[in-house]
Amino acid sequence: MRVDRARLDRALNPRTVVVVGDKAPSYQWLTNLKEFTGQVYSVQLDEKEIAGIEERGYQNFTSLLDVPGEVDLVICAVPRQVTPFVVGDAIKKGVGGISMFTSGFAETGEPEAAALQDQLVEMCREAGMPLVGPNCMGVYNRRLGVKFSAAQEQGAGGDVSIISQSGTHGIGMTLGAQRVGVKVTRTISIGNAAVLNECDYLEYLLEDPDTPAIFMYLEGVREGRRFFELLRQATRRKPVVIWRGGRSKAGARAVRSHTGSLASDIAVWDALIQQTGAIPAQSIDDAIDTMAALVHTTTPTGRDIALVAMTGGQSVAITDQFERAGFDVPELSPASYERLAEFFMTVGGSYRNPFDAASTIGRETDNLKKILDILAEDSAIDAGVAIEIGARGFDDDPARLDGQLDLLQQYRERTGFPVVTMIPTGGAMGGDEEQVVRARAHVASRGFPVYPNFERGAAALGRVVDFHEWSASL
Amino acid sequence: MRVDRARLDRALNPRTVVVVGDKAPSYQWLTNLKEFTGQVYSVQLDEKEIAGIEERGYQNFTSLLDVPGEVDLVICAVPRQVTPFVVGDAIKKGVGGISMFTSGFAETGEPEAAALQDQLVEMCREAGMPLVGPNCMGVYNRRLGVKFSAAQEQGAGGDVSIISQSGTHGIGMTLGAQRVGVKVTRTISIGNAAVLNECDYLEYLLEDPDTPAIFMYLEGVREGRRFFELLRQATRRKPVVIWRGGRSKAGARAVRSHTGSLASDIAVWDALIQQTGAIPAQSIDDAIDTMAALVHTTTPTGRDIALVAMTGGQSVAITDQFERAGFDVPELSPASYERLAEFFMTVGGSYRNPFDAASTIGRETDNLKKILDILAEDSAIDAGVAIEIGARGFDDDPARLDGQLDLLQQYRERTGFPVVTMIPTGGAMGGDEEQVVRARAHVASRGFPVYPNFERGAAALGRVVDFHEWSASL
Repeated sequence: MRVDRARLDRALNPRTVVVVGDKAPSYQWLTNLKEFTGQVYSVQLDEKEIAGIEERGYQNFTSLLDVPGEVDLVICAVPRQVTPFVVGDAIKKGVGGISMFTSGFAETGEPEAAALQDQLVEMCREAGMPLVGPNCMGVYNRRLGVKFSAAQEQGAGGDVSIISQSGTHGIGMTLGAQRVGVKVTRTISIGNAAVLNECDYLEYLLEDPDTPAIFMYLEGVREGRRFFELLRQATRRKPVVIWRGGRSKAGARAVRSHTGSLASDIAVWDALIQQTGAIPAQSIDDAIDTMAALVHTTTPTGRDIALVAMTGGQSVAITDQFERAGFDVPELSPASYERLAEFFMTVGGSYRNPFDAASTIGRETDNLKKILDILAEDSAIDAGVAIEIGARGFDDDPARLDGQLDLLQQYRERTGFPVVTMIPTGGAMGGDEEQVVRARAHVASRGFPVYPNFERGAAALGRVVDFHEWSASL
Repeated sequence: MRVDRARLDRALNPRTVVVVGDKAPSYQWLTNLKEFTGQVYSVQLDEKEIAGIEERGYQNFTSLLDVPGEVDLVICAVPRQVTPFVVGDAIKKGVGGISMFTSGFAETGEPEAAALQDQLVEMCREAGMPLVGPNCMGVYNRRLGVKFSAAQEQGAGGDVSIISQSGTHGIGMTLGAQRVGVKVTRTISIGNAAVLNECDYLEYLLEDPDTPAIFMYLEGVREGRRFFELLRQATRRKPVVIWRGGRSKAGARAVRSHTGSLASDIAVWDALIQQTGAIPAQSIDDAIDTMAALVHTTTPTGRDIALVAMTGGQSVAITDQFERAGFDVPELSPASYERLAEFFMTVGGSYRNPFDAASTIGRETDNLKKILDILAEDSAIDAGVAIEIGARGFDDDPARLDGQLDLLQQYRERTGFPVVTMIPTGGAMGGDEEQVVRARAHVASRGFPVYPNFERGAAALGRVVDFHEWSASL
């Protein structure tokens, strides 16, 4: 259904939310709204559940129609046979929209369940009622604290928004983004996408000033032509990354029982992605890696990159991976090599690009500063710096890592080029794995893209360069 | 040089080790031998260093010739200009072999440095002296406690041996193996491979009863034909995984200054790998992932796999990745579906294969047991089970995870098929990342291959199946 934007705005940015049908033991939906900045009410008929709800301090009504004032969003968690009554009341009440957690509709493959879904769709279409789902986790809004997972952050700002046909992946992508220091403006778990579909959400996010980039997990599209046109518009205004689930034969079978989607021909799909300039992802890690690179790097002007690793062996490895991802690792100017020769050992190690940082003479931080100054001034480099960082000693001396990050920050401010960091898991320089996790989190919190190995850093930055090249070619 | 096996045996399994030229502040090489089961002596001329060495309880001599008894291995860490004298004394003394940490030879590109290396080579060849290196970390032996990194484990058993042209990667692969529960029998860091080269080590490991599988990191080969023939023999007796560094243009440049190797034509290399049945790896994570799968799985008889994930979204994702890696995800027999229908919800979720474990009714462990029993009895499955495991709650209740692993252990004992586990980083079901790391370590310690995402688990098991198919085709 073509959606009324003002109405969808209300549903996605609610001031009042009503949860219908929440239950013991966890009262999941009310609990998810613990930090919501607006007003929350409950609707529940079951006496036993009402006691628990009121104990938790929520005002309960036995009918949605009794709730005072305007209602922007109804979260519906009732058994499926009750859903038409909730939708009916929501229409009567004139609520902004409905988010329907209830499952057991078209995705079951049962004719009666599909008919029930059709009934809801018809009711909503007739009334112009935006319904998210069914069979979904609904709406997360960072600023307002509307959540569907307790671990979703609340606060100002926002770097990306997410549309996900899977609740798990909607949560996974949101938490994954947070882990790499990316703020998610909103996540919409779209489930069976029976009333509103991916096109409606994409159209909304396209015009959303708080959404600088869009990430989607989709198991199929319902309006191919409309999706194609919207995607074409969207990619001209902001990066759109799409992870497509159900690419494989058995994957498509799994999709049918998951969200009732029919997988389209995957070759057609890939052509669509390529024609629109959308950025494809093959997995959640792909998607999150790309997010970190898109949000935390500036625009490169080419593919000539400087690589810095901590040892000779790693300098070979990092180079293989970045060339494999489409980068060139050029030699520098003679003037640069003269300056480099002053503090690199001639014996062992290398400074031709890649750089083996273990072969420098003198203080590590001083040398990194010299290397970055030389790279900033050498016109051979136009894709920035990718650098291996060691986690060893991070717990005892976090200032050392901060010193390196300060220098990298100066480099990217000065040049406008990307900086990508990698802290390999385990490895010879890694120290213990939990310390590696902490060091990575620290680097992410400083606004740098950080990866667990060279191949993922290279692939992520490669996708960003692809996107910028595509944009520039328009 | 064709090596005298008995002599190389002495060098790689020493009873007496002499460190020549160790230095303050760390006395790295003597410290690395702290847990060595044999006898350690030091040779050092420098008065200042001698005091430090004797303080640490090592007996020091000013000449290798003064050391009493037979010497199996000399670790040489003197400045490069002194190396001919150490090699000369080692030859006079008739030691088993030399491991030369000293760098600054052919890898520098300087003619004098290359000439110095040639001089050492000539001396060793004439005397039949096995020299490991130069420009290397030398020899690790798990059983004897000869180490070149403090974190290398000591103890009984051994699943794989490693040959690495890079010291960093030699350490990284050893520690990476340990992290996934794989015991490394021996690691040889071969550096410039000037006297003994990768062929000699491969020939040795081929006949080594303590080496069930071989892993190599190579930046080039010196005797192409011999290497090809040896590799052909080796892969008929044990799996050989090769990670080739310097595949790319700039990577090959980095290789030259790292170990002085000349990168060969990469197309020729790839053809060689394919003809010999060696298993290629593109990175250290690739290599370690493959190790875990080779060591911790039994032999599958086909590519028909059963997939179990924790949610509907994940069941789609795991299927896409395993099909992408060459597996089939077949439907089961009607009899199996009848049994499955008894404890799977018909509403939402799926049990067609992939299985969405969230859709079962009743106790999680009981249901996993039922699923595994049904899979064990259904002839549609011949590649085993790949299963997503959640880390959430692991710290509070490790017994729950152990219960799942007990069931998986029973499945693989009963069927002889592989079991591959995946604990995704972050994700909706992951819990915090440090807990994920601990849960993975626990799974590895129980002897299961465990991966941080579906794509790596699928790729690793895919390589194992490729190898078994190749072996079966001979």
